[in-house]
Amino acid sequence: MGDIGFETKPPAKNKLFHGTFIHSKALTELEYLHNAAVAVDSLGTIVAVSPDTDLTKAQATLLPQLNWSFDDTEIVVAKPGQFFFPGFIDTHLHASQYPNVGLFGSSTLLDWLNTYTFPLEASLSSLPKAQKVYSRVIRKTLSHGTTTAAYYATIDVPATNLLADLCLSSGQRALIGRVCMDQLGPAYYLDESPAESLAKTKQCIEHVLSRDPQMELITPIITPRFAPACSAPLMKELGRLAKETDLPVQTHISENKNEIALVASLFPDAGSSYAEVYDTFGLLTPKTILAHAVHLTEKEADLVRERRSKVSHCPCSNSAITSGAARVRWLLDKGIEVGLGTDMSGGYSPSVLEAARHAVLVSRHICMDEGRSEERDKLSVEEVLYLATRGGAKVVGMEEKIGGLEVGMEWDVQLVGLHDVDEEDAEEEGNVDVFGWESWEEKIAKWVYNGDDRNTKKVWVRGRLVHERK
Amino acid sequence: MGDIGFETKPPAKNKLFHGTFIHSKALTELEYLHNAAVAVDSLGTIVAVSPDTDLTKAQATLLPQLNWSFDDTEIVVAKPGQFFFPGFIDTHLHASQYPNVGLFGSSTLLDWLNTYTFPLEASLSSLPKAQKVYSRVIRKTLSHGTTTAAYYATIDVPATNLLADLCLSSGQRALIGRVCMDQLGPAYYLDESPAESLAKTKQCIEHVLSRDPQMELITPIITPRFAPACSAPLMKELGRLAKETDLPVQTHISENKNEIALVASLFPDAGSSYAEVYDTFGLLTPKTILAHAVHLTEKEADLVRERRSKVSHCPCSNSAITSGAARVRWLLDKGIEVGLGTDMSGGYSPSVLEAARHAVLVSRHICMDEGRSEERDKLSVEEVLYLATRGGAKVVGMEEKIGGLEVGMEWDVQLVGLHDVDEEDAEEEGNVDVFGWESWEEKIAKWVYNGDDRNTKKVWVRGRLVHERK
Repeated sequence: MGDIGFETKPPAKNKLFHGTFIHSKALTELEYLHNAAVAVDSLGTIVAVSPDTDLTKAQATLLPQLNWSFDDTEIVVAKPGQFFFPGFIDTHLHASQYPNVGLFGSSTLLDWLNTYTFPLEASLSSLPKAQKVYSRVIRKTLSHGTTTAAYYATIDVPATNLLADLCLSSGQRALIGRVCMDQLGPAYYLDESPAESLAKTKQCIEHVLSRDPQMELITPIITPRFAPACSAPLMKELGRLAKETDLPVQTHISENKNEIALVASLFPDAGSSYAEVYDTFGLLTPKTILAHAVHLTEKEADLVRERRSKVSHCPCSNSAITSGAARVRWLLDKGIEVGLGTDMSGGYSPSVLEAARHAVLVSRHICMDEGRSEERDKLSVEEVLYLATRGGAKVVGMEEKIGGLEVGMEWDVQLVGLHDVDEEDAEEEGNVDVFGWESWEEKIAKWVYNGDDRNTKKVWVRGRLVHERK
Repeated sequence: MGDIGFETKPPAKNKLFHGTFIHSKALTELEYLHNAAVAVDSLGTIVAVSPDTDLTKAQATLLPQLNWSFDDTEIVVAKPGQFFFPGFIDTHLHASQYPNVGLFGSSTLLDWLNTYTFPLEASLSSLPKAQKVYSRVIRKTLSHGTTTAAYYATIDVPATNLLADLCLSSGQRALIGRVCMDQLGPAYYLDESPAESLAKTKQCIEHVLSRDPQMELITPIITPRFAPACSAPLMKELGRLAKETDLPVQTHISENKNEIALVASLFPDAGSSYAEVYDTFGLLTPKTILAHAVHLTEKEADLVRERRSKVSHCPCSNSAITSGAARVRWLLDKGIEVGLGTDMSGGYSPSVLEAARHAVLVSRHICMDEGRSEERDKLSVEEVLYLATRGGAKVVGMEEKIGGLEVGMEWDVQLVGLHDVDEEDAEEEGNVDVFGWESWEEKIAKWVYNGDDRNTKKVWVRGRLVHERK
C-alpha cells in the first residue's frame, strides 16, 4: 500500500476560491454568496469568507491580511453558472455490498440478506477482491460529491483495515466499521463468539488510530450489524466499548416489520421495543447513527431523542426493498437529527443527490397516504440539501468541521456545473439543461431533480483535490 | 427548414446486426438471444432473425438467402457486454414544458398549471424559442433511447407544426398533438372558441399529413388537454373528428383529487365520472391514450377496458407533484394496456428508463400502504421493461411495428453498453458497474436501477441511426 501515512498530510498550498458559493443557512434556507471569495489554508481550513468581491480585489485585500504570498496561493474559480457546494455526507452505506447495487429482485430485508448480501460480504475476505470493490466504491462515491462516508465493511479484519487505508489514500473522509455479528448469519459468515467479535473490533480500531491518530480523516466506528445479528453479551460488550472509547456507533433500527417482530422474539428481556434493546446495552449514545427508523413508535422516537442518537434516512433503500416510508418530518419535529444515506446495496444508487431527490418523493408518498395532511410532511429541495450536508454532519458528529462554508470549518466541497443549452460543448453534459431564464433557486431545483455525477466537476476534502472530471 | 420530405426516406443500405439481443417475450419474461444476427433491410424492416450464429456464418448464409451483396451490407456488432434492446416508447410528455423539468416546488396539479406551465407554453408561440426548446427535447429523449414519443405541443399552430418538422428531420417517431383548450386557462393562453380549436387542430393534422402522408414516422394526434380545459361543445367536436379521421386521441384522466372534483362540477350532465365524461363525447376510443389514471374507480376502469382505451403510467410525475400512486397491477389485471410516460414537466426526467425504475418503486409504495397485499402489486424489472417497450407500442397503436425484435417489425432499437470495472477507459462510464460475475438477468437489473443516457450508445429509428454517443 506504500506510505499511507503520508496521505493524511494536507496539501501544502494555500488556496483562494472565487465565484458563487451556496450552502444551507437553516433547514429551510440556502444561502447564496455570489462574486465571493473563500480562503482555505494549507491545512484545509477555511480562514476567510468575503462576500461581494471580485477576484482581483480579493487578491489585493485578503492575501495581505492573511500574510499569504500571491505566487504561492492557488486560485480556483467557479465559472459563470458553476457554484461551490458543501460535499455530501453519506451517513449509511455498506462498502462491501457495492457490487450488488440494483440486485434485490422482489425480496425484503431478511431474505435479501441471505440471498444477496451475506455471500458477497463473506467473499471479501479475499483481499484482491476487497481491494477491487473498495477502490471502486470510494472512487464512485467521490465522483458523486460524497466527501464523508459512514462505511460498513465486513466481519473480516484485514479487509476492513484495507478499506481504511484506501479511504486515507484516496482522501475520502470516512467512518470505518468492522461489522459485528455473532448470530443470524450463515455459519460461513459469523464472528465465533462475543469475545472474538470484540477483539476483532479492537484490532480495527487500533489499525485506524495507527494510521490517523488524530482521526483527522478516518474514524473507527463500532458497528453491531443490527440487533438480530448480535447476541446480548456481544451488544453488552460493544456498549461498554463505546463508553470506554467514546467512539461513534452505527447500526440499523426498525427497517422492516418482520425484523421488528424478530427483535421482539430474540430479546424478550431487553426492553419492550427495538430502541429499548439498544438502550439496554448502552448502544443509544449521542454518537450513535441509527439507519432507517422507518417504523419507530412514538415512545421509541422519544427515547432516541432523549439519548440524542441520530437517524440516517435511506429513502432509495426503503422503497427498493419495500421496507416502508420513514416519516422524516415527524423525526425532525421531535428534534432528532437526520442525515441521508444511500444504504448501498439495499439502496441502488451511489449518489446522495439521488437520496435527496428520493427523500422529497418519499415525503410526498407519505402525504398521499390516506389520513395524512397534504402539505406538512413534504420535504422541500432546500430541506433535503440540508439533510445531505449539515444534517449529515450532525449525524456523524462533525458539524463543527463540515457541512457548511464558515470560517473554521474544513474545505470539504464540490464544484457543481450545470449545462447551458446555448453552449454546444462536446464534453459530457448531464441531464440538467439550463435555458438562461432560471433563477438560482430554480437552477438548484433542476440540479436536485436531474443532476448526476457529471455535474460534480471537482471535489475537495480538507482542501485536497480528490476528484476531478476530465 | 429545408427539404424535410427527404428526411422521411429510409437509409439506403441493408444492415446486419450481430451480438446479443434482448426484448420482451411476455409481460414477465425477457428473451435473450446471444450470438445472434438480425438483418434489417433498406426500408428499416427486420427481415431475418438468426439465433446462435457467429458473424461469419451469418454473412455466409443470410446474405445469399436475402440476395444482399456483401459489400453493400453495413455490419453493426454489439461488443461483448453490449446488447441491442428495443427503443423506448414515451407515451406521454409535453415537449413544450421541457425547460421546466424539476420546477414545481410543492405545488399540485391545478396550481402547478397556472404557476409554471401556462406561461411557458404560451411563450412558445415565439418560433425561435420553440425551435430551441423542441430541438433540445428531441435530442435529449433520443439520447435516452426514446425512439417514439407521444408529444403534446401547445395551442399554437406554427410551433406545433415546427415540432412535427423537427421530429421528422431528427428521425424520431412521434405523435404530434396540438393542445386544445377553450376554458380554464388564462386569457392569454386559450383557444377562442370550439370552432377555432377544431380548425387549428385540422391545420396541424393537415400539416403532418402533408409531410408524411403514410404516417410512416409522424402521426397527428387529437389532443383535448383534459376535460376541465375543454368545453362540452369542443369535446363533442373532437370526438366527432376522432371518429371521422380514425386518428389517435390523447388526454389526461384522474390525475389528482381536486381535478376530479372539478370535472364533476363542470360536467354535471355528462355522465357520473371522469371517464364517462370522455365517453359521452366519443373520446374513449381504442386509440385513446389516457395519461395518469391514478384515482379511477372500478367502474371507470371497466369502462376504459370496454372501450379498449389505453393508459400511460407516469410514476415520476405522480410522485413529484403529489398526485397519487397509480395501481398498475390492478389495471393490467383488468386487461387494460399500459405504457410508461415521462410526463415532462410534471415528471422531472426525460428518461423512460427512469420512469421504469420509478414504476417499480411506486408499485412497492402501493404494497407498503396499509391493507394491501405485500407481493401482488409489485412490478418486476421484466414487467417495467415490457411496459417501456411492448406495452408502450400497444398504447400508441403500433404493436405490429415496434416494441420487439421480430421479422416484419421496424428497427427502432438502442444499443446498450454497461461499464466493466476491469476496463479503465477514460470515456464516460455511467453508473452501472459490472464486476464480471453477474448473470444477464442481473446485468439487466443493474441497468434498470442505475442506467442512464451514458449506457445508450446508439439509437436507430426505422433502421436509421439517429443518435450516437461520441
